[in-house]
Amino acid sequence: MSYLDDFEFFGNVKKAQDFVDGVKSGNFLFSLAISYTETCEIPGITFAGADKDSIKFTPPADAEYLYYGYCKTIDKIPMTPDGKPTPGLLTKTALESCSIPHIVINAGSKISPQLPFIQTDLLHGQNISVESAMNNSQVSLAVDYGRMVGRTLASMTDCLIIGESIPGGTTTALAVLRGLGFKANVSSSIPNNPVELKNQIVNTALERITSNNPYHIISEVGDPMIAFVTGMLSSASEVTKVMLAGGTQMTAVLAFASKIGFNEQNTAIGTTSYIIDDESANFKSLVSEIADIPAIAVNPGLVNSKFSGLKAFSQGYAKEGVGAGGSMIASMIKTGSNASNFLPLAEKEYHRLFTSL
Amino acid sequence: MSYLDDFEFFGNVKKAQDFVDGVKSGNFLFSLAISYTETCEIPGITFAGADKDSIKFTPPADAEYLYYGYCKTIDKIPMTPDGKPTPGLLTKTALESCSIPHIVINAGSKISPQLPFIQTDLLHGQNISVESAMNNSQVSLAVDYGRMVGRTLASMTDCLIIGESIPGGTTTALAVLRGLGFKANVSSSIPNNPVELKNQIVNTALERITSNNPYHIISEVGDPMIAFVTGMLSSASEVTKVMLAGGTQMTAVLAFASKIGFNEQNTAIGTTSYIIDDESANFKSLVSEIADIPAIAVNPGLVNSKFSGLKAFSQGYAKEGVGAGGSMIASMIKTGSNASNFLPLAEKEYHRLFTSL
Repeated sequence: MSYLDDFEFFGNVKKAQDFVDGVKSGNFLFSLAISYTETCEIPGITFAGADKDSIKFTPPADAEYLYYGYCKTIDKIPMTPDGKPTPGLLTKTALESCSIPHIVINAGSKISPQLPFIQTDLLHGQNISVESAMNNSQVSLAVDYGRMVGRTLASMTDCLIIGESIPGGTTTALAVLRGLGFKANVSSSIPNNPVELKNQIVNTALERITSNNPYHIISEVGDPMIAFVTGMLSSASEVTKVMLAGGTQMTAVLAFASKIGFNEQNTAIGTTSYIIDDESANFKSLVSEIADIPAIAVNPGLVNSKFSGLKAFSQGYAKEGVGAGGSMIASMIKTGSNASNFLPLAEKEYHRLFTSL
Repeated sequence: MSYLDDFEFFGNVKKAQDFVDGVKSGNFLFSLAISYTETCEIPGITFAGADKDSIKFTPPADAEYLYYGYCKTIDKIPMTPDGKPTPGLLTKTALESCSIPHIVINAGSKISPQLPFIQTDLLHGQNISVESAMNNSQVSLAVDYGRMVGRTLASMTDCLIIGESIPGGTTTALAVLRGLGFKANVSSSIPNNPVELKNQIVNTALERITSNNPYHIISEVGDPMIAFVTGMLSSASEVTKVMLAGGTQMTAVLAFASKIGFNEQNTAIGTTSYIIDDESANFKSLVSEIADIPAIAVNPGLVNSKFSGLKAFSQGYAKEGVGAGGSMIASMIKTGSNASNFLPLAEKEYHRLFTSL
């Protein structure tokens, strides 16, 4: 069975096939933008961390786990409060299965990872339920620095994959999408998506918006990841193929990019099928509404796993994140293997993590 | 006239031609490791800065100049006290003439550059005339982080060029070379090389050495750049071609690498002919003594310049640095142009810098 059977194409379907064909024989580079918004400190908004105090360590810990196979900033890999692992497990398995190089970018994380990473000195975002996310000059700086990093990384690869780790990021993404005029519902790391709470926060935040200027909108209701990755996309897509690896948060990047300019011909979005399956989100129609680009969702078949912690992804826990979908798509394209080849690798990694002393 | 007429091969000459042939049709990536040793604060030891207080800004300012064409950390580009420009001018001209991408690594600089860069959080080095350069764990960390960065960057390119900017670095390089048992004299950014002063500092520093362990020697008399770039070379040369871009300082890297292991088959050193012409240094014989690798020196013909500030390089001022030699070599290999094509580009850049308001 070909890996194409594990892919679902949507958005511009014709272009999706072209995108896959276009990157098949080339090199990939995976980049991970880690960031932080204090919006994640609102109780009940995220499961991206074992408890409230550990959420800020999740982005650097995700980055460390990809490099070392364990974390330095915290003792264990990032998990939900009931012990389900970070989607970074899928990312790590995918990248290692095909030796795709990766690089970490600190785009406003509160904590730096203990490894060499691209530093931007961007500030983390504020809680959008109570104040502006960032001031205008931080938004401009984030976009400018994103453009610089995007240009450099794009010149080294045939396909730049961009993933993110920012707890609370689906809420700021929802606010950005709505602020920019798109009809968005969003996904969540929590199976019973706290839709009411998110809508309430977003509505409060949107009240601060006083103009249609997209920079103003990001500054009021966005986060540093959205600004930075949009800058990356904007310059990188002029040079090479770019795959935005993520769900709702990457649609917010796409939305901002549609206002400030990017090259649609080189851009795709890649995610997991669990995002598509999320009935509280409208991911497919949203992508088409924003831009004429291809989208690919991969079903890694975790529903068949013997480990409940892996099966959980298919049941709506942490459906996506750390660029899991995009990196699995890239690994299947590069190696020609499919989801049934991937599952044992993910299980081996799960077993290593959860049976080690 | 071919650019080969502007090159001089030495070290393993047969391999030098092979190295040029091997990288001709590939992609280059230029990396700049910026660093700091308090050894540069010894009066009279360096000209890499307009005055004593501005020396620490030279490495980040060199990095900023490559990115922006001007500096953010200081008002003007780095210069000698009498106004001769940083060799970064040659690097910038070379990289732009052929669109070679570049990336900056902070490997112990006292000041961070105002741009996105690879952060390592390494500490800067101490003054080796009075104390150990670094503790042992910093040396190990620098080598480990260097290995990580080297592996990542190497996987993205056919030829990784590594340059440095560390004021006072020729003195620590001399100490490392002698400490590791090589018969070294060294070059300098100053035409009347303060040989006596350097020897005095080096002899004092070498008295602290109590074992042959190369990590101990770097820790006592080295600097963070040497440790970090050696780690980079060690892993990167397993994956791709590597050109150490520099003079004396890169021989110190080569010396440390010869003790901890690297792949000679993929390694070359590239520098300017002004280093070779320096009678107080013994660069050619030193390279052969350390390793069986090719070396290439380029003569960019600055002696023919109408600007005294460019001609000065050929007269022994700041003969090398910021990877100038290696990046000129790469640009000539990539574009097929020679020194007579390069000179007008360097003059145009010089004119832009020194006639702007």
